[in-house]
Amino acid sequence: MSDIELLLDADGVRAYLLEVWPQVNGAWQIESLSSGMARLRKQTLPSELRPGGTVSGPTLMALADSAAYVLVLGLLGRAALAVTSSLHIDFLRRPVEGELIAEAELVKLGRSLVTTSVRLGNDSPAKPFDRTKPVAIVSATYSRALV
Amino acid sequence: MSDIELLLDADGVRAYLLEVWPQVNGAWQIESLSSGMARLRKQTLPSELRPGGTVSGPTLMALADSAAYVLVLGLLGRAALAVTSSLHIDFLRRPVEGELIAEAELVKLGRSLVTTSVRLGNDSPAKPFDRTKPVAIVSATYSRALV
Amino acid sequence: MSDIELLLDADGVRAYLLEVWPQVNGAWQIESLSSGMARLRKQTLPSELRPGGTVSGPTLMALADSAAYVLVLGLLGRAALAVTSSLHIDFLRRPVEGELIAEAELVKLGRSLVTTSVRLGNDSPAKPFDRTKPVAIVSATYSRALV
Amino acid sequence: MSDIELLLDADGVRAYLLEVWPQVNGAWQIESLSSGMARLRKQTLPSELRPGGTVSGPTLMALADSAAYVLVLGLLGRAALAVTSSLHIDFLRRPVEGELIAEAELVKLGRSLVTTSVRLGNDSPAKPFDRTKPVAIVSATYSRALV
Repeated sequence: MSDIELLLDADGVRAYLLEVWPQVNGAWQIESLSSGMARLRKQTLPSELRPGGTVSGPTLMALADSAAYVLVLGLLGRAALAVTSSLHIDFLRRPVEGELIAEAELVKLGRSLVTTSVRLGNDSPAKPFDRTKPVAIVSATYSRALV
Repeated sequence: MSDIELLLDADGVRAYLLEVWPQVNGAWQIESLSSGMARLRKQTLPSELRPGGTVSGPTLMALADSAAYVLVLGLLGRAALAVTSSLHIDFLRRPVEGELIAEAELVKLGRSLVTTSVRLGNDSPAKPFDRTKPVAIVSATYSRALV
Repeated sequence: MSDIELLLDADGVRAYLLEVWPQVNGAWQIESLSSGMARLRKQTLPSELRPGGTVSGPTLMALADSAAYVLVLGLLGRAALAVTSSLHIDFLRRPVEGELIAEAELVKLGRSLVTTSVRLGNDSPAKPFDRTKPVAIVSATYSRALV
Repeated sequence: MSDIELLLDADGVRAYLLEVWPQVNGAWQIESLSSGMARLRKQTLPSELRPGGTVSGPTLMALADSAAYVLVLGLLGRAALAVTSSLHIDFLRRPVEGELIAEAELVKLGRSLVTTSVRLGNDSPAKPFDRTKPVAIVSATYSRALV
């Protein structure tokens, strides 16, 4: 969807988030942002693990939601009044502690709704992130106005 | 679905969670548990709010997932090897800080999947929890074996 | 949600559908319609069955979508420009040929989105429709404007 | 997911479907089938259109479900006892009469569940199918055993 332009680049989104949502600072990093894709990286915390070292489901849901939000901010800019209107997640493989990647792809920038498809996975030197074998796949929709 | 019996009652689930998942202690309380419904109560934390006092989406998703998990533990018992396999949430109304309720209703106890329908809402003396006007509605499915 | 009034009652919706969507005539009947719930009844057709007598998934999805649409028409009236924006279905039990019921409950009438929760099941003299043991449960969202 | 082998190729699935589900014959064609992707093509019928020439939602849901089923049959073979366990669809753009494409991508072949991601769109000489601008995006999960 290369015919769409970003209103905020990665640095612009980082600066905006520091202003309006400072408590998220450090929870994850924006690795890259284009008009078609936002990529976030996160180091899991001990509190986000379940017995056995599995990353908790809500941790994955929060990261997917954040990746979609970063993409929405890039597309709609600082004034964005956008809230998650729905989210669907399928848990597919066991995520382990360490580095997680979330890639949010734009599938529709509509007048009232923005729809993204997000894939999550671990990333390590031995086993780099592989979009075709995600630990979870998400459809996240943001509403541009209050529903 | 009154023909199904609980293997663990509310006290049994509380004791089990203290053993295997102590970090969740205090995040929410089990108000009631039957074979057809689990009801959780939660006091929102400052870290769970967004600017303006809205409760964050991941906070609602985590509470819904927990309510479904409590129901699954009650039905399947201590030995339960159950993981969330999918979750769908529609965000409907603006949740505010304070007390939240999550009611997880059993819709199918299958041999491989357990499906629940969860409704979330605020609860206050002035405006008690109303199942017909939820802030969010969730379908959460647990897998009884590793997928 | 008794504080909402219908703009069209069941007869009004039937008349409107005969005008704008005549090919659906006879596929199902509106049993009842209130501002909180639409109930449809359908007799399965041989072409809607799979080997073994199971009702096909798309047949259930279509019936759920129709039940939500009837509720939306009742609430928004004849001029309604409303399209399905998302639908989530969990298939729970094996539906058999014969009579099917779909009950669509209103969970949110928003300014841009209308969200419904639909339960489907068989209905027969020997085994009447039971909302607590549905063959499928659906979340269907309509958009009041083109997305 | 190139490390997975097909048990049935496109011709094998076509032959199997003629045996067990002859009424689907002609509703769509299998264009290609690999272990990672099934691609179906369909010509819309007048009965599948809504006023204005839009393709009905259930038509898209049925085509997505079929594409996922063809992929599942290819992976699991003739003896496959597989039923749709859940389906989530986001309707994104207005589909028009003519040729439709559905591409079902394998995201997880699990022991009990098979998860696919399906994209649907129109295809015409003037405007070929574009996976990045789908008319709808679907997550469809099949259960390998009765749920």
